[in-house]
Amino acid sequence: MVRPRKSDQTREELLAVGTELLTSHGYHGTGIKQILDAVGVPKGSFYNFFPSKEAFVAEVIHHYGEQVEEEIERATAGLEQEPGLVQLWCSFRNKVQREVATGQSCACLLGAMSAEIARSSPLCREAIETVEQRWVERIRMGIELAQQQGDLRDDIAAENLAPTLYNCWQGSLLQYQVSGNPDDLLRHLWTFLSTLMTVQGKLTFENSNACKRELHYDK
Amino acid sequence: MVRPRKSDQTREELLAVGTELLTSHGYHGTGIKQILDAVGVPKGSFYNFFPSKEAFVAEVIHHYGEQVEEEIERATAGLEQEPGLVQLWCSFRNKVQREVATGQSCACLLGAMSAEIARSSPLCREAIETVEQRWVERIRMGIELAQQQGDLRDDIAAENLAPTLYNCWQGSLLQYQVSGNPDDLLRHLWTFLSTLMTVQGKLTFENSNACKRELHYDK
Repeated sequence: MVRPRKSDQTREELLAVGTELLTSHGYHGTGIKQILDAVGVPKGSFYNFFPSKEAFVAEVIHHYGEQVEEEIERATAGLEQEPGLVQLWCSFRNKVQREVATGQSCACLLGAMSAEIARSSPLCREAIETVEQRWVERIRMGIELAQQQGDLRDDIAAENLAPTLYNCWQGSLLQYQVSGNPDDLLRHLWTFLSTLMTVQGKLTFENSNACKRELHYDK
Repeated sequence: MVRPRKSDQTREELLAVGTELLTSHGYHGTGIKQILDAVGVPKGSFYNFFPSKEAFVAEVIHHYGEQVEEEIERATAGLEQEPGLVQLWCSFRNKVQREVATGQSCACLLGAMSAEIARSSPLCREAIETVEQRWVERIRMGIELAQQQGDLRDDIAAENLAPTLYNCWQGSLLQYQVSGNPDDLLRHLWTFLSTLMTVQGKLTFENSNACKRELHYDK
């Protein structure tokens, strides 16, 4: 087994702590010193890892993007044979439920950084765009599969619906910051999905836990 | 005519400058000194107006909420006899078009404050909640009228659709911060509305300026 170099480990730790602090306190609310103190790195050595705070944050955004994709993989593991609509819904629902169960915040770094610094930092804006394009493409593929399987209406193109669904999700994340209630997240996403579903009458969100039961998927 | 007192004027100016700076630079990126300098008020006197930065920001949020409601009134002035769907769409579209025409940013203070300080400041959180409830209620009324007039589907309750539409809007505002393109704002809202419309085939968003033409409203 090849042991990771100490400097690689430190870099990973800086990115992980950066993700957490930037999501909670924002760009201007997070000092480099805070991050270094949390990891136990002397101030001078920060610039051995990253040329500037801005470059660091851009890298945190990329790192966070990969991390969320891994979480989505985990959230949908074992569901590969399920209908596309079940996979799409579970990619959000299981992720939220896992975060709630492990006491993590459901807040999204990208929403926070979009609101605060996307306009003023081209480097961070580019990082956000790259990550979001990947996420939206994943949603588009899920919607398209569900359309092909006849579970979502196909009179509106998946490539139009995907960014709209993503925006609905990001807006719900903002609302969750205010209400503190993770149910809000899933409820509004559910409402949006239900405007697309072809099997209206059978669907309920309330008092339901199993994903297939939620979707009343009885094929 | 009763002339406003000097202190009332100063207070209004502080709120106006606060709205602008907080929307652009966020809570932690905006210093009280910056606001005072812009208005020309000596530092010590800030606390004659507001007990703390947090209380000031909460008041800015309320002030901003009223301002947006006035803008919505302006955006829909003269449309009182139009169908509910036209009024609802124009309340967003005309507001965005006016902001673009006058070189204003379309960014929303509430989105920025929700992402950055809603969780850490109960005072600001309460202000955001109060304002958003009023806005969402306005959207709910618009959707309900359009449902009664047969232009929007009524199999999903207006009270569920309204916060989902609002979240879609807030998410689109975040995306606009990244892309800088105000068309993105209207395009995604349009996609969401089109999932609700009862006259699918007739609708296009592209190359259309007049609101009634956009909606192909030919009743």
